[in-house]
Amino acid sequence: MARVIVDVMLKPEILDPQGQAIARALPRLGFSGVAAVRQGKRFELELEGPADDTALAEVRKMAETLLANTVIEDYTVRVEE
Amino acid sequence: MARVIVDVMLKPEILDPQGQAIARALPRLGFSGVAAVRQGKRFELELEGPADDTALAEVRKMAETLLANTVIEDYTVRVEE
Repeated sequence: MARVIVDVMLKPEILDPQGQAIARALPRLGFSGVAAVRQGKRFELELEGPADDTALAEVRKMAETLLANTVIEDYTVRVEE
Repeated sequence: MARVIVDVMLKPEILDPQGQAIARALPRLGFSGVAAVRQGKRFELELEGPADDTALAEVRKMAETLLANTVIEDYTVRVEE
């Protein structure tokens, strides 16, 4: 069993209203020092086998097919130690 | 400028219907080898200053106040290299 993390974030050029709302809420809550916030998604996949090259290529296909909208989102795949 | 990542995931004992829906969709799309999926949120915070201990303590307070619902969610804070 291996755990693979897929992080999905809006591409930098795509407006992120959720992140902007958080950034604007922080000063109202008394927090300072944050210039910008972006919000994205994180998926934890428990694989049945080891996280070898074949499995990671398969996870990348899952990310492109189901987890991310590659028109507006970027994704990264990594194995959790 | 430093970038800090806050990952927010449902606590392990909390049911995750979004993750389950993804896990069930994968075989229908021809993917195999995934035992379980959990979906969570990822926040990227651009700090105005360095990510020192004071700034990270402040980010942890932001996570507890605004980014995570600590009744049902766990969060982790880390500096992105």
